Amino acid sequence: MTESRQQLQVDLGDRSYPILIGDGLLGESDLGRYVAGNQVMIVTNETVAPLYLEAARRCFAGKAVDTVILPDGERYKDWETLNRIFDALLERRHSRKTTLVALGGGVVGDMTGFAAASYQRGVPFIQIPTTLLSQVDSSVGGKTGINHPLGKNMIGAFHQPEVVLIDTRTLATLPPREVSAGLAEVIKYGLIRDVEFLAWLESEMDRLMGLDSVALAEAIYRSCACKAEVVAQDEREGGLRAILNLGHTFGHAIETFAGYGIWLHGEAVGSGMVMAADLSRRMGMISPEDDDRVRRLVQKAGLPTTVPGGMTPDDFRTLMAVDKKNVDGSLRLVLMRALGDAVVTADIDTDALQQTLLSFCQTAD
Amino acid sequence: MTESRQQLQVDLGDRSYPILIGDGLLGESDLGRYVAGNQVMIVTNETVAPLYLEAARRCFAGKAVDTVILPDGERYKDWETLNRIFDALLERRHSRKTTLVALGGGVVGDMTGFAAASYQRGVPFIQIPTTLLSQVDSSVGGKTGINHPLGKNMIGAFHQPEVVLIDTRTLATLPPREVSAGLAEVIKYGLIRDVEFLAWLESEMDRLMGLDSVALAEAIYRSCACKAEVVAQDEREGGLRAILNLGHTFGHAIETFAGYGIWLHGEAVGSGMVMAADLSRRMGMISPEDDDRVRRLVQKAGLPTTVPGGMTPDDFRTLMAVDKKNVDGSLRLVLMRALGDAVVTADIDTDALQQTLLSFCQTAD
Repeated sequence: MTESRQQLQVDLGDRSYPILIGDGLLGESDLGRYVAGNQVMIVTNETVAPLYLEAARRCFAGKAVDTVILPDGERYKDWETLNRIFDALLERRHSRKTTLVALGGGVVGDMTGFAAASYQRGVPFIQIPTTLLSQVDSSVGGKTGINHPLGKNMIGAFHQPEVVLIDTRTLATLPPREVSAGLAEVIKYGLIRDVEFLAWLESEMDRLMGLDSVALAEAIYRSCACKAEVVAQDEREGGLRAILNLGHTFGHAIETFAGYGIWLHGEAVGSGMVMAADLSRRMGMISPEDDDRVRRLVQKAGLPTTVPGGMTPDDFRTLMAVDKKNVDGSLRLVLMRALGDAVVTADIDTDALQQTLLSFCQTAD
Repeated sequence: MTESRQQLQVDLGDRSYPILIGDGLLGESDLGRYVAGNQVMIVTNETVAPLYLEAARRCFAGKAVDTVILPDGERYKDWETLNRIFDALLERRHSRKTTLVALGGGVVGDMTGFAAASYQRGVPFIQIPTTLLSQVDSSVGGKTGINHPLGKNMIGAFHQPEVVLIDTRTLATLPPREVSAGLAEVIKYGLIRDVEFLAWLESEMDRLMGLDSVALAEAIYRSCACKAEVVAQDEREGGLRAILNLGHTFGHAIETFAGYGIWLHGEAVGSGMVMAADLSRRMGMISPEDDDRVRRLVQKAGLPTTVPGGMTPDDFRTLMAVDKKNVDGSLRLVLMRALGDAVVTADIDTDALQQTLLSFCQTAD
């Protein structure tokens, strides 16, 4: 796959939707066909609005388009900011036939999706992700939500978009740190389901870091395809879908400990995947060589492989205890049986986990 | 139907659930079979807790039961109070296998249902409604939500319970004003779908007002059956279900104008149904005699038939403009083609509506 424009279908019965991927799609596409009514509310943030809001408006010619511009950052993924979307919808008298449009990264996408799920008990929405992380992860699969002081993404809904439009050209304005954060989730797909893609990433990581548009398009396409396959099999995370959380249980603990927004989500997932590989090795599931391969690839993507300074094993235990994967109070983690083959398990070797936590916490800054 | 224990099935495919109706069910029933995991969180309020919390706990023997007690009143149907449920769930580390239980009236039911819809993107819940209004209306059908300063129930979700347990004995402790408020919704079922039930209500209203348990059980059963039928045909209110909103567009405007909780919801619906009958008459859809029949029955149930003092036609227009039934900015109302035959329409005679609003606002206290 070396073409610059691709289309992918997420197969979810009457909630199926297309993902359009291409260089320069924003502003050239007519998304009016995905809008049932006449009203559109574009939700974006202060960083993205000056760059892409006008182009996004052009995708909805002939519709009554309102906009709401939120502050930028994970720390605003809260009720107060969400409520600004509801305020705007009600002040502009948007009916239940309105369509919301998320223009921005994962925070904008998750909040807009949850606003759409909840406004008048549910209205349609469209995703236009503008960061690599949101293009390969949060814009696909219908998970929406906000954070709670006691846990990330604890309040939300499953709500599928009408369409996802990914313009790879938006990555040109993305800070390098956020490119790396997005690559964490790209690497994850290789680790959980596709060892060939993992090998491709090992050989192409320099092109990806250099924002080569063809390489990026391929990485995005394969990532979305992988996620779409998993979500199609298990939309509401009854089983398989949880493997998409490789590295996320450790990662969420890191994000919460550091304070939302200090570590980028993808950075925390980068470290979390290295921790999951370490634990998988200690439990005899993967070889030391495979563990090294994971660490090296994460490093190559410019991602951290340590934990925040001062974080202790007890901090991890406390923060991981509220993870959504847990059942009746017992911890569940995503581990690797082999590279390219992840599994969700509650069968965790307590000593090995303690060794992993100790070894990462001791090497912290 | 004169038995004291009845069971009704709400037919929604894999979201189907039973409604158990009976005198003394609370505390005698084992609801453990409806709880998938081990954790239960009973949500109730300060008024209901001293009366029924212990009996409700007994329905979940063998489970780990936590409780959260909210302040009582429609004015607490907001995000801050909802968040107290999330706080309790996270502090007590409830997993996504927890079950929430709503013990109380419509406010507790709507908030607990929305908390269940949103906690970790959705957990199961059980309804134990303890007011007549919630027994015949809000506990059936899966509508959940909270209020926004600019409109009632503007933020919420469709989320069906696992089971509804209605113990008619709880009505013994209900203030007479709330009995009347519940009867408003009971009358509504007669007006929209069942003219025979309407005639039965006209003859039995004194027994109902006197809390005759057999009469109450029959009214509840027929009301729930009517609502279950409508909901089964149109779960997400694409069409038919909107007839359940007879009187509610005017009623919501009254509630919002008066300030949440000053008028009871059922009281506002009582007046709203009289206004809908008045407009239906002015538009030549029902006879003056039928209009009188509606007004007399609403009065007989101890309900208001006027609007709040100082409320103007402009107040109604402004507040009705944000109603969820509206499409692309045009007002839709539920009117009656005949008693027992309601219809949702955007085809509203503007002059007749103005006459209705003027006549009710002029006669206000």
